[in-house]
Amino acid sequence: MSGSSTIDVPSEADALLLSRRPGVEPEAADFELASVSVPAPRDGEVTVRNVLTSVDPYMLPRMQGRSSYASPFPLGEPVAADSIGEVVASAHLGVPVGSWLVSHSGWRTYATVAGSPADVIDRRIGDPVAWLSVLGMTGITAWFGLHDIGRVRPGETVLVNAAAGAVGSVVVQLAVHAGARVVAVAGSASKLRHIRELGADEAVDYNAPAFDEALARACDSGVDVFFDNVGGRQLASALPLMRPHGRVVLCGRMSGLGADADPGLVDIGPAVPNRLSLQGFIVVDHLDRWPGIRSELAGLLAQGELRPVISITDGLDRAPDALAGLYRRGTNHIGKSLVRIAED
Amino acid sequence: MSGSSTIDVPSEADALLLSRRPGVEPEAADFELASVSVPAPRDGEVTVRNVLTSVDPYMLPRMQGRSSYASPFPLGEPVAADSIGEVVASAHLGVPVGSWLVSHSGWRTYATVAGSPADVIDRRIGDPVAWLSVLGMTGITAWFGLHDIGRVRPGETVLVNAAAGAVGSVVVQLAVHAGARVVAVAGSASKLRHIRELGADEAVDYNAPAFDEALARACDSGVDVFFDNVGGRQLASALPLMRPHGRVVLCGRMSGLGADADPGLVDIGPAVPNRLSLQGFIVVDHLDRWPGIRSELAGLLAQGELRPVISITDGLDRAPDALAGLYRRGTNHIGKSLVRIAED
Repeated sequence: MSGSSTIDVPSEADALLLSRRPGVEPEAADFELASVSVPAPRDGEVTVRNVLTSVDPYMLPRMQGRSSYASPFPLGEPVAADSIGEVVASAHLGVPVGSWLVSHSGWRTYATVAGSPADVIDRRIGDPVAWLSVLGMTGITAWFGLHDIGRVRPGETVLVNAAAGAVGSVVVQLAVHAGARVVAVAGSASKLRHIRELGADEAVDYNAPAFDEALARACDSGVDVFFDNVGGRQLASALPLMRPHGRVVLCGRMSGLGADADPGLVDIGPAVPNRLSLQGFIVVDHLDRWPGIRSELAGLLAQGELRPVISITDGLDRAPDALAGLYRRGTNHIGKSLVRIAED
Repeated sequence: MSGSSTIDVPSEADALLLSRRPGVEPEAADFELASVSVPAPRDGEVTVRNVLTSVDPYMLPRMQGRSSYASPFPLGEPVAADSIGEVVASAHLGVPVGSWLVSHSGWRTYATVAGSPADVIDRRIGDPVAWLSVLGMTGITAWFGLHDIGRVRPGETVLVNAAAGAVGSVVVQLAVHAGARVVAVAGSASKLRHIRELGADEAVDYNAPAFDEALARACDSGVDVFFDNVGGRQLASALPLMRPHGRVVLCGRMSGLGADADPGLVDIGPAVPNRLSLQGFIVVDHLDRWPGIRSELAGLLAQGELRPVISITDGLDRAPDALAGLYRRGTNHIGKSLVRIAED
């Protein structure tokens, strides 16, 4: 083991394995807490003690084996997810023991992974947790969708739904910073309060009885950029409000996931006369844009123009609960949902 | 009247006025044949003897007063439409008597209009009728949609519906010329035969009992560019067949017009994982592209790579019938629908 050094490293770790494919929603019995081995790092590898891990909407379809763009999660293996932690053993000169690392090692307490200096967290920029939220896939998705796809300009109106969610809460802040008027949709009073605090000009309750009317009032001069995290009925409600040449950023489709699955049928008739564009995207297709976008986001973070919005669930064993919470209406998770595996 | 010369010019013309707003479909009683005056051309104007005029799908919503992007047609006025004819009086040095002109003078036998040398038909390129079909808005819409919006590349699969129609019959030919595999959808045996003659690799009958299955079979390797002239159920059937990064060119929505109006609800769920783009457009927004596209089309026409596909109805008084035919299923109009007002 050339060039390695270690602090206290166990040879086994706790991990949550996917033991069967979930039905409509993930439940505890779909997972199994087990011991997995933590091999000593070989040349170029490091062992990381995971502190926080991520739950993301895209995980359920991969667990169910019905994701159309990413391979299914294998059964009997620890669930893969972005995690951050401290390097406790290293066989990579560029990733020393004591550094903090983002890895895709997932729902487990320790893991040995390929080391990459690009994944070492620069703690001068802020709390490492930012690497799982505004500086991670979440924040980069928000930026890429709003700017690269949505081409937002100052003075335009941006509509964003699931606005208290992981991506939505970043979109609200970025759109405010871009000089847009921001109309944000969420599903509870506490979420509405929260998105107003983030700077949204209008906050509309999706569960209010006259949602369509309230949305139309909030968007009375029309919508230029609609950042859609939901699809289905919410897309159907927003499409008639789009201004000519409006851009619909198809970022996610929470409406098609979980027990509340929405048939999601939409009349896209207004798209022709209004010259709308509707564009789906997957941010991992655009890895070339990540460094540039991350440095923009880090700049905003340093200036206090952007803040991580995070909900943390304590305990690796509660990761399935945290995941299920993403698909359940009426939960009060705000922002990016993370699971704490260990104390810093 | 400086610089003018005349041949036989009447002071009155026959015209079809819009006398009331049509219901679901236009009918004869919505129009009135009347005499309108033909003033002598003033400086810069010319008088044209119309030979052919155009009926287009966008006209019905304008007659009904419910077009969202163009002003309603005024009641009591001759219906505006592209027409071609011969200049019979001129007060414009660049548009001499005897030249052929495209104008927007519409459903009338004679009209005095502003002269524009850009609208003079170059008869060396081919039959003047091409200026109302492949070299006019119809052909330019097909090119702009397929190339500028659809970004078709050789070897890709192009799906086009209403493929025996005005725009569709040009799209089929242009897609074949671009090196694409072409799957074309139409609604009768004679139309299917016709689009095969234009070079389509597969022709699928929209009225066949198992349309979805037949379409999926014809598109078994997926669709890269879907040129949608119909919307509604046909869009719903095609969306699941799109390949990753596919482009949906939202050109028209015949399904929303006429008595056969289709609720047009679509599940656009596949757009996110497949990174689809759906783009509506109106070709008159892109007048800067017209000269370049028209010269590409004229080149193809000269090389015999493109032929005008036209159905002509004889007699100005039958223009309402020709218009109604656009919205009626089961008619056998092929290609661009024109009305002959006078013999050449």
